[in-house]
Amino acid sequence: MYEKEVRELCGRIRDRRPLIHNITNYVAMNFSANVLLALGASPLMSSEPDEMEDIVSGASSLVINIGCLEKEQMKAALSAVATAGRCGVPWILDPAGVGVSRMRKDFVSKLVSRCRPAAIRGNASEILTLCGTGCATSGVDSAIPGSDAVEGAKTLAATLGTIVAVSGEVDYVTDGSKVEQITGGSPLMSSVTAMGCACTAVAGAALAVEEDTFAAVCSAMKLMSLAGSLAGGRFSAPGSFAAGFIDALYEISGR
Amino acid sequence: MYEKEVRELCGRIRDRRPLIHNITNYVAMNFSANVLLALGASPLMSSEPDEMEDIVSGASSLVINIGCLEKEQMKAALSAVATAGRCGVPWILDPAGVGVSRMRKDFVSKLVSRCRPAAIRGNASEILTLCGTGCATSGVDSAIPGSDAVEGAKTLAATLGTIVAVSGEVDYVTDGSKVEQITGGSPLMSSVTAMGCACTAVAGAALAVEEDTFAAVCSAMKLMSLAGSLAGGRFSAPGSFAAGFIDALYEISGR
Amino acid sequence: MYEKEVRELCGRIRDRRPLIHNITNYVAMNFSANVLLALGASPLMSSEPDEMEDIVSGASSLVINIGCLEKEQMKAALSAVATAGRCGVPWILDPAGVGVSRMRKDFVSKLVSRCRPAAIRGNASEILTLCGTGCATSGVDSAIPGSDAVEGAKTLAATLGTIVAVSGEVDYVTDGSKVEQITGGSPLMSSVTAMGCACTAVAGAALAVEEDTFAAVCSAMKLMSLAGSLAGGRFSAPGSFAAGFIDALYEISGR
Repeated sequence: MYEKEVRELCGRIRDRRPLIHNITNYVAMNFSANVLLALGASPLMSSEPDEMEDIVSGASSLVINIGCLEKEQMKAALSAVATAGRCGVPWILDPAGVGVSRMRKDFVSKLVSRCRPAAIRGNASEILTLCGTGCATSGVDSAIPGSDAVEGAKTLAATLGTIVAVSGEVDYVTDGSKVEQITGGSPLMSSVTAMGCACTAVAGAALAVEEDTFAAVCSAMKLMSLAGSLAGGRFSAPGSFAAGFIDALYEISGR
Repeated sequence: MYEKEVRELCGRIRDRRPLIHNITNYVAMNFSANVLLALGASPLMSSEPDEMEDIVSGASSLVINIGCLEKEQMKAALSAVATAGRCGVPWILDPAGVGVSRMRKDFVSKLVSRCRPAAIRGNASEILTLCGTGCATSGVDSAIPGSDAVEGAKTLAATLGTIVAVSGEVDYVTDGSKVEQITGGSPLMSSVTAMGCACTAVAGAALAVEEDTFAAVCSAMKLMSLAGSLAGGRFSAPGSFAAGFIDALYEISGR
Repeated sequence: MYEKEVRELCGRIRDRRPLIHNITNYVAMNFSANVLLALGASPLMSSEPDEMEDIVSGASSLVINIGCLEKEQMKAALSAVATAGRCGVPWILDPAGVGVSRMRKDFVSKLVSRCRPAAIRGNASEILTLCGTGCATSGVDSAIPGSDAVEGAKTLAATLGTIVAVSGEVDYVTDGSKVEQITGGSPLMSSVTAMGCACTAVAGAALAVEEDTFAAVCSAMKLMSLAGSLAGGRFSAPGSFAAGFIDALYEISGR
């Protein structure tokens, strides 16, 4: 069953070539674009407020990642979610490093209140920060296991009416009541920068081609996990693993 | 003959180490810099208006790519082409994703009217958008074969008095009257982000070391195509192919 | 002894996972983050002035690289060094391409006068530019051997009361009186973009875990050199070498 979902997701992305618009951080841009291209999606990256309406109205989904949040990008994100709401374009939030500053926390509150995200994907620290349980956070990485954030993720999902995914050694996806666990992957995934950002981008691509949001996010997490397992079986250090991860996605995608 | 042109281009870049200034998008910056370094050119990346005059006046050529166009970058590009015009520095335009917004189309018109580019390189969608034939565009990728844009490219080249290159499975380079076709490469090239941007950067390096603009752009496209063929013969997925492409350029360059 | 220093540095970074905040250029962001992650450090990248105080006050060290200097980034850097000074967070300067514009030279003067850096790392051109000896510079690369900049580096270190490292075929580290030479590495290091920036980031990580600043910078340079030698023994072109360099750091780190 696992593999059927992944195969179906890959098939839909490959066939429809959805345009995924990304407002994301500078560290992740190249890797996220390559991950989306490996699957056959069409990535677009822009954070210029003046073209958000033109771009988002023509996109299949929208990914917003706050990893290198800047003033112009905040304007762009607010404009983008407004257009997404009006045009029915699903959007996903990656609260990258939300705990590192008051500015990021305030901005995320504003953004999600402006237009409900279809999904949110973060690590345990980030999800707990969104829950307001004020855990100590250290940068953009998380030292907390995903299981510690499951209850918080359920509450967050129920409150916002969204899907919440918590990445970690085991991933958890919840709609506020049911919780799906996804295992697999590779420990090397946490040694490659922007791997979490890329996971959010893949979930964004899934939202573009699959109506059931919960199923879309689960399939995306499984796809990432499968690619991680494949690459992890072939490489033992992060430099070669990162290229091998892109290769694995491409192979799984069957392009 | 093919290989002689490529060898000569590589030799000139390697010997002269031209400083290539790039105003480009965030997705492409790292890959373009590595592509230029593999050939022995000296890449520089800045989009700060206040230093454009200092930088461009000392550069051997200028590459402007609008893939992540932002307000400050637009100011920088206008300042850069003004300096390029005054100092006789050739510049090349990459109209990346020009079709995705009114803002990009308007800006490109303004830019080329301010100072004639020595060359323009884009995919078929982008070139047709510049021609004003208003084809539907989807993001930064092109689903249209290059051959559909050849007539448009000829008109564009003749109107602006520039060289136009259309990238695709087959590449076309025209000065408005003659058209050269370049075959080869690898289908994997379209699965690596910023490959087109890197092609423009290489053409920019060629303009820095070769007086005949048409010959410079043709040689650059041939070099890219040859590196793509080499890497494509060695790798079958985009992650390893991207690294292999850089390696192939370095090998061809004979450094 | 050489290897003992490197092993100890790696052990401390791995055990403490220091948060390294980077205000750096767009070309280097992904590579620097991957280099820091390979060693087990926790990289953070932001150039937004409004969150600098929150971020830097919680960081273990601060890296400032001026390779793609922009107005908002200058504001962020000034705010960051002020916070670093107040909170006792050591910071390191990478004067990337300082010679390409008046703007960069002026900004670096302002920055170092605001708060003394614990260390400065650059190539010979960049260090000579900081010394005001006005050598001709070409972009961000250096054609001058490091040995030409040793006397300048000593004077600079003595004047500012800092450690100065000059990268090149042979690296030199000085505190103004003693000078340590570091050999090894690989010629391919200069064909990978952002290798120097990554070296500064690793030195930043060393400053976070080692009180003796001179020893910290020397160990960081030795670690980079050792990883370069290892990767250079395995790969002969820059694309595969870059991934192999990350792998080598990870291996040396013993994670």
